[in-house]
Amino acid sequence: MKKVVTFGEIMMRLSPPLNYRLTQISSLEITYGGGDANVAASLVRLGMPAAHAGCFPDNELGQAAAQSFQRLGVDMSHCVFKGDRLGLYFLEVGASLRASRIVYDRYNSAFANLQPEWFNWDEILKDASYLHWTGITPAISATAAQATAEAIQAARRLGITVSADVNYRRNLWQYGQRAQDVMPPLVAGCDMVVCTEGDAEDLFGIKAEPGAENSFVAMSEQLVQRFPQIKRIIATRRNTQSASHERIRGIAYIDGTFHETEDFDINPVVDRIGGGDSFISGFIYGSQKYSTVAEALTFATAASALKHTIHGDINLVTAAEVEHIMAGNTSGRLLR
Amino acid sequence: MKKVVTFGEIMMRLSPPLNYRLTQISSLEITYGGGDANVAASLVRLGMPAAHAGCFPDNELGQAAAQSFQRLGVDMSHCVFKGDRLGLYFLEVGASLRASRIVYDRYNSAFANLQPEWFNWDEILKDASYLHWTGITPAISATAAQATAEAIQAARRLGITVSADVNYRRNLWQYGQRAQDVMPPLVAGCDMVVCTEGDAEDLFGIKAEPGAENSFVAMSEQLVQRFPQIKRIIATRRNTQSASHERIRGIAYIDGTFHETEDFDINPVVDRIGGGDSFISGFIYGSQKYSTVAEALTFATAASALKHTIHGDINLVTAAEVEHIMAGNTSGRLLR
Amino acid sequence: MKKVVTFGEIMMRLSPPLNYRLTQISSLEITYGGGDANVAASLVRLGMPAAHAGCFPDNELGQAAAQSFQRLGVDMSHCVFKGDRLGLYFLEVGASLRASRIVYDRYNSAFANLQPEWFNWDEILKDASYLHWTGITPAISATAAQATAEAIQAARRLGITVSADVNYRRNLWQYGQRAQDVMPPLVAGCDMVVCTEGDAEDLFGIKAEPGAENSFVAMSEQLVQRFPQIKRIIATRRNTQSASHERIRGIAYIDGTFHETEDFDINPVVDRIGGGDSFISGFIYGSQKYSTVAEALTFATAASALKHTIHGDINLVTAAEVEHIMAGNTSGRLLR
Amino acid sequence: MKKVVTFGEIMMRLSPPLNYRLTQISSLEITYGGGDANVAASLVRLGMPAAHAGCFPDNELGQAAAQSFQRLGVDMSHCVFKGDRLGLYFLEVGASLRASRIVYDRYNSAFANLQPEWFNWDEILKDASYLHWTGITPAISATAAQATAEAIQAARRLGITVSADVNYRRNLWQYGQRAQDVMPPLVAGCDMVVCTEGDAEDLFGIKAEPGAENSFVAMSEQLVQRFPQIKRIIATRRNTQSASHERIRGIAYIDGTFHETEDFDINPVVDRIGGGDSFISGFIYGSQKYSTVAEALTFATAASALKHTIHGDINLVTAAEVEHIMAGNTSGRLLR
Amino acid sequence: MKKVVTFGEIMMRLSPPLNYRLTQISSLEITYGGGDANVAASLVRLGMPAAHAGCFPDNELGQAAAQSFQRLGVDMSHCVFKGDRLGLYFLEVGASLRASRIVYDRYNSAFANLQPEWFNWDEILKDASYLHWTGITPAISATAAQATAEAIQAARRLGITVSADVNYRRNLWQYGQRAQDVMPPLVAGCDMVVCTEGDAEDLFGIKAEPGAENSFVAMSEQLVQRFPQIKRIIATRRNTQSASHERIRGIAYIDGTFHETEDFDINPVVDRIGGGDSFISGFIYGSQKYSTVAEALTFATAASALKHTIHGDINLVTAAEVEHIMAGNTSGRLLR
Amino acid sequence: MKKVVTFGEIMMRLSPPLNYRLTQISSLEITYGGGDANVAASLVRLGMPAAHAGCFPDNELGQAAAQSFQRLGVDMSHCVFKGDRLGLYFLEVGASLRASRIVYDRYNSAFANLQPEWFNWDEILKDASYLHWTGITPAISATAAQATAEAIQAARRLGITVSADVNYRRNLWQYGQRAQDVMPPLVAGCDMVVCTEGDAEDLFGIKAEPGAENSFVAMSEQLVQRFPQIKRIIATRRNTQSASHERIRGIAYIDGTFHETEDFDINPVVDRIGGGDSFISGFIYGSQKYSTVAEALTFATAASALKHTIHGDINLVTAAEVEHIMAGNTSGRLLR
Repeated sequence: MKKVVTFGEIMMRLSPPLNYRLTQISSLEITYGGGDANVAASLVRLGMPAAHAGCFPDNELGQAAAQSFQRLGVDMSHCVFKGDRLGLYFLEVGASLRASRIVYDRYNSAFANLQPEWFNWDEILKDASYLHWTGITPAISATAAQATAEAIQAARRLGITVSADVNYRRNLWQYGQRAQDVMPPLVAGCDMVVCTEGDAEDLFGIKAEPGAENSFVAMSEQLVQRFPQIKRIIATRRNTQSASHERIRGIAYIDGTFHETEDFDINPVVDRIGGGDSFISGFIYGSQKYSTVAEALTFATAASALKHTIHGDINLVTAAEVEHIMAGNTSGRLLR
Repeated sequence: MKKVVTFGEIMMRLSPPLNYRLTQISSLEITYGGGDANVAASLVRLGMPAAHAGCFPDNELGQAAAQSFQRLGVDMSHCVFKGDRLGLYFLEVGASLRASRIVYDRYNSAFANLQPEWFNWDEILKDASYLHWTGITPAISATAAQATAEAIQAARRLGITVSADVNYRRNLWQYGQRAQDVMPPLVAGCDMVVCTEGDAEDLFGIKAEPGAENSFVAMSEQLVQRFPQIKRIIATRRNTQSASHERIRGIAYIDGTFHETEDFDINPVVDRIGGGDSFISGFIYGSQKYSTVAEALTFATAASALKHTIHGDINLVTAAEVEHIMAGNTSGRLLR
Repeated sequence: MKKVVTFGEIMMRLSPPLNYRLTQISSLEITYGGGDANVAASLVRLGMPAAHAGCFPDNELGQAAAQSFQRLGVDMSHCVFKGDRLGLYFLEVGASLRASRIVYDRYNSAFANLQPEWFNWDEILKDASYLHWTGITPAISATAAQATAEAIQAARRLGITVSADVNYRRNLWQYGQRAQDVMPPLVAGCDMVVCTEGDAEDLFGIKAEPGAENSFVAMSEQLVQRFPQIKRIIATRRNTQSASHERIRGIAYIDGTFHETEDFDINPVVDRIGGGDSFISGFIYGSQKYSTVAEALTFATAASALKHTIHGDINLVTAAEVEHIMAGNTSGRLLR
Repeated sequence: MKKVVTFGEIMMRLSPPLNYRLTQISSLEITYGGGDANVAASLVRLGMPAAHAGCFPDNELGQAAAQSFQRLGVDMSHCVFKGDRLGLYFLEVGASLRASRIVYDRYNSAFANLQPEWFNWDEILKDASYLHWTGITPAISATAAQATAEAIQAARRLGITVSADVNYRRNLWQYGQRAQDVMPPLVAGCDMVVCTEGDAEDLFGIKAEPGAENSFVAMSEQLVQRFPQIKRIIATRRNTQSASHERIRGIAYIDGTFHETEDFDINPVVDRIGGGDSFISGFIYGSQKYSTVAEALTFATAASALKHTIHGDINLVTAAEVEHIMAGNTSGRLLR
Repeated sequence: MKKVVTFGEIMMRLSPPLNYRLTQISSLEITYGGGDANVAASLVRLGMPAAHAGCFPDNELGQAAAQSFQRLGVDMSHCVFKGDRLGLYFLEVGASLRASRIVYDRYNSAFANLQPEWFNWDEILKDASYLHWTGITPAISATAAQATAEAIQAARRLGITVSADVNYRRNLWQYGQRAQDVMPPLVAGCDMVVCTEGDAEDLFGIKAEPGAENSFVAMSEQLVQRFPQIKRIIATRRNTQSASHERIRGIAYIDGTFHETEDFDINPVVDRIGGGDSFISGFIYGSQKYSTVAEALTFATAASALKHTIHGDINLVTAAEVEHIMAGNTSGRLLR
Repeated sequence: MKKVVTFGEIMMRLSPPLNYRLTQISSLEITYGGGDANVAASLVRLGMPAAHAGCFPDNELGQAAAQSFQRLGVDMSHCVFKGDRLGLYFLEVGASLRASRIVYDRYNSAFANLQPEWFNWDEILKDASYLHWTGITPAISATAAQATAEAIQAARRLGITVSADVNYRRNLWQYGQRAQDVMPPLVAGCDMVVCTEGDAEDLFGIKAEPGAENSFVAMSEQLVQRFPQIKRIIATRRNTQSASHERIRGIAYIDGTFHETEDFDINPVVDRIGGGDSFISGFIYGSQKYSTVAEALTFATAASALKHTIHGDINLVTAAEVEHIMAGNTSGRLLR
């Protein structure tokens, strides 16, 4: 099986224990994650090889971040260790009607200051079947956007499938360029995207016609018209009950057809970070393993549901565990 | 904005981690709280200045207790450090159908042994707009009851609004006087009270007429007749589903009119201690901020609902966070 | 009150904190338990004397295991300390739709290598009214099965009531004998059994007739016909909603009559291990205390429901706490 | 081997983790101990049977305290569960030149309020060879002093050896009687005492002559003259280097002869509480096992040295481990 | 007693538990500190009022940092909450021959971006007797240096004593100005400085003449000649044995006379951060309390020695505890 | 730089927190290590590539064990995942005069049951410059001994340097063959060995002549005579002061010449496990980097000294950190 390559920033996540607030605590729990690297790590756990390209400060914190993915079997040999600081974020985990909150401290990170020429994409993508990136990466800095563009170009040149989670975060775009200018050419190079109606409107000015019966389909039809390379658009519908109770469904528009799964109910939610990344890795894996879109989409959604029960950003579950859920075993009976 | 002054005992609370039982553990988690001081601390967090008057043993435990409120910005300069022991209680947190339990160890505390003359109320209440006390304080000792009476008298003399959480706890009254004798003159000096039908019956012999459509209104009508100074009576209706699942609603009888909020659903409950205190601080704050009783009561109830998701006795939430809930954002979606 | 005697293996249980996976953690939480010893310990807590006979390695781990039961008041004086290793199991606690999982590491334990002659049953059972064992014990090794048989024979000889949780676990039977050969003569010596339809089919080839209105009754009728010593058959019906949410009901077939309790809803589940053992200890205690089967069965089921809220294998609740639940107080209101 | 009986209060000890100060922490570590019960528990660990008589509040804290000794095999069946509160103390562990500090909160404990008639000494001391008490017990309350006197009388009547750690603590004597009046008749009934020159001067007005070459011998000669029942006087000489570094030596005056061990160097000290109690249990055990005083004293001192490396009040070491140290193996080489 | 005012940055300090390395851990312990604010907090604990002026990001982390000093009684009312990030540093605590290491992440902090006009020094210094700053503050940014200069000018104008810990850290000076240009005019406004021979050479080009018997005196003589306002120069001599074992001595050159204390031996060192700050606060306090320089210097050095036994940056000791050490009680005997 | 290959068992190590005893605790800290794999991991940290071959159970525990080395960059791709259980050991960390103790539970592990044919040594050793093994591996089982022999043969055939830590542990040899028969042919294939006089006598009957001035040289001379392939014999001299204080020196007999380093003093010892393995990895690395034996030996000993300050089995230090110590910087001054 050929490897999947991801590119993006890995940050240190610092959380108070349990549901404590940031002003209450004297210790913080540490994990490491990034929207793209999480996909790589979850894929390795499912059984597909993966490599991640990124940039870390040349200190103990950078090493610890990279080691946490190397531990899981992600090939980190294309990572660069240059620069001063690791991007951080502080996560306060909510409960019930109190939402979880994130305080970012990621500006001027080693990744933001990367130089595109540090990444030789022909070499990094050698023997790869897949390149995956997220809309967070080009939002970080001009050089990060440039490197993303070069990676996509190389992938296209090498005939490698490209996917993106377009994931528009308004607050992140602070280096002087507009997402609306930067993203379209990047997305134009993708075969698959994760995109919601909101993302499509914000980034591409695509409005699902008012009165459309299915706004996702309406959006998707316009998206594929605008970006003809795109063949598959997927997303999760979140029906968030509370910070502790989530309900999700997978949806897809693939080759002109709409697909949808059953709802998966998650109560309690152990950790919601990385829920979308696990959906993507589930879909990439599922698309290789199953012959039908319906199965791949159900696998992806079941994988994402399971992720909500795992601490940290990464979906530490095997394909067999996902299939156990797919087969309807959601009652959580003890396995001996 | 003028300050709110509270008076009462602050105790050390010792709890096993998570839901462990007291006989299972080798460490106890420590917080500090008191029904009145909790109101002060929550108010400061909401944005109103507050001071607390109390008495602590002259040792490290007394200092730690006082510092935990000073840290949050409560003015503790009127506290007295005399005596030997800090009142303690051991809290075993239940789960599902197992109730939480409290084992008190508070007799003979420094606070119980206070001398009324240690508190110069004219000075303490200078520049205050509000005095708040609870029915626990006069239950502790004759001197504590005496100091409460003096505080109320000073407040009335100075034209300061007085509120009380009447909060009758039968077991506490052990120093030789009856609550039924001590409480009425104190309550007579109040402008606002938190009082349930049960409290009114136990303390004042007020029985909501059988067959009354709304027992709270029936009780309130009699209460204001008996204590004409009282203009506002508020309470929460708890519809406790389990030790882990609570549903609350705010009710009020104000100037002859009954008010009631929607239900707020809290599942899971992180910490129920201080739920009533946060309701009161929410109402005091809300009454200043909003022009209608309905808004103030909704603010108070939303604040109390949020408190159930916070560890410890004190409602560590901002007014903006309460308003986010008031606006119907109870689904707990991640805030970045 | 005469004592209850149990016989079986006590293992060290090692669990990641909270819901972490085994591959994520750097510490493991330790408790000790065994399906039979758990019954003894829970009984002592309820108020009946109990003794446990077992075998531990002659090292610190064996001592720690035995001490954890001695601490609770179980008479451990009949235990033997010989052999090299303590049986272990690793428990990964699930959440929501992710099931809990157990990884066993119990082969070649000190208990598996016991010699039947180390146990003088006439002495151990002196002054006992009850012997309880589980189907796990004869599954461990030939000598453990032999000792079980000798214990049952001694109990019968001394006129002591015998009960068993037949608890068939296919994977455990690995020493060369078939459960279907070993278990019937042991079960033949029992007055009471915990047995589900699945157990009865797997072990004794008893099939509840297809179309039977009540499969438990159908199974029970055949069971008492086959083993005329058996007078009472009890079980719990688990309606598992998720790894975090359980619903249980008690059922019994006693002297030809079927009994059934209401459902008890447990959400969240704190710890499901030992739920069956607490049902049995509840029934043994309840049968002594109450005059009706209905009460004993409700006590047993309420006890088991409470166990799901307690960390560890043992039901650390008093009879008064169970009766509080029996009386319908399942809303978990704070007890001061 | 006949059992040793101890009598006295067991308290909950609450300590900040590591060397934190009481004002810094949000959790406290819990252990249970008492100067006399520690002797019982350490003896059981060494291999002698022991029982403890005491009084605990009838709540979870009292149970937990008693269970912690029952776990180690001390017979707690003569303990009484009546009263409201468990005595507590807060221990702040120092380091280097910062001394450890204790804040007591033990007044009005269940033990202080015991009634002497709750203890049937003839029954408790049946089959015992030894009664041990400490000077702390008669300091707690008049009834505790009375019960101590009755225990000693019963022991004398039954021909049981009596020992005491006279352990004078000025601050404790607060119930209206003077140690100088209460202690002499109690000490008069002892066969063995732990007593320093300071204790002897404070309690009995015995001054080692100025200029005496060996003040301990000078004191002992007067002590045996005054209390002719006493045959053995033992003590440790502490040469405290810092809160983290201790050096101890055992000394004894036995049948007119002075004995002294080598110094034992302990660096770092893990926990100094119970160091004296472990010396006593070591001497009681050693006196039975060895034929010479020198060996018994060396065993006792080695046991006490080892105790300083064990967390908690109790000397959790085997006789073999003490003998390993006695044999000069103090270099701490890894044992596989 | 008039208050001491300090000015400078407070950072979050994140340390692995115990002596773990940064690449090994999954949680970090949090405290807050700053070279100047530590002086303020330690002074309050000793008994002198103190206020701190600083700048924090307007988020939970900024609040937590400020609250940690407010908790100890430092007046934080002159602090400004503007900006995005809190300065951080990661501290890896060494042991024995492995040194402790710090990884800074403090650039672009809210403090670095402060505007001098946010601080009204006439108001801040009202009723103050003392202004203290450190050489770290002007190293952070041009605006921080400017604010420092304005504070010193105001203090001089108001007749307030000024002290500084010159504390030259080469790596910090990165905003384009040289310490050698910025520091002299600031130091010229000081009455007292902490300064070592190395600092004097690096910052002011002052070389203690080779062959000088006492290099500190040689340096001091030149320093007072160059900066005639300076009357007192103090420092500690560290004779570091290992990361776990420190030996310190206080030295001073005051009004032309050299003073020196005995050595204080600290083994083990619990936490060396803030050792210098506690020396300064000890000297400021001691100078007020004692009539001789020798006593003040011994108090300061004893205070600093004690600090090495306290977790965190701040010297949480009372004046009585320091005097206990001054009086020679360094053996660490248990205090009851 | 060519890689080093190691072969052997990796076990889970379970330790009570701090210095607690196994009978005291409710959690165990987990690390993974093995005498040979520790060498590989430490080498990668120093800067040399390394691969480890081993065998793990096909479950979460096996994965966790392998991942902990993969995290550090050891190539684990030649490891086999077959079998049921992971070898375990329980480590009780002593203090001062109480020695650390290990309780093994490693029989019948997946590694013990390996089949030699699972390891294709020509492939595993491709591009390697070094094979390292320890005397523990052939002690585990006949198949492990056989695989070791095959690895050595392949290495000799491929011209790869072979080293061994002969490390004789009497208790381990339990599968029916004698170390004295199995080890000599394996050692005969080595170029370098770690061997003490005790090992040489026990395994090879080599006695250093009585009266020899330097017993290590006397032993070494005989050893190279008996095994002419051996050119380098190295060892550490441990002068263990206590469980908390170690003093080590490196010694070597290389090409007929004796070398010896200064003493390194380690106080306190954080973790002594892996001290020997870090010496070996230090020597392998040092021999490549330095031109003289003296430097290599000093590097190795400094590395081992540093290891004693690191938690866990593996020497998580860089070459620069070791060189810092080599250069005499052992005072542990804070590095900013």
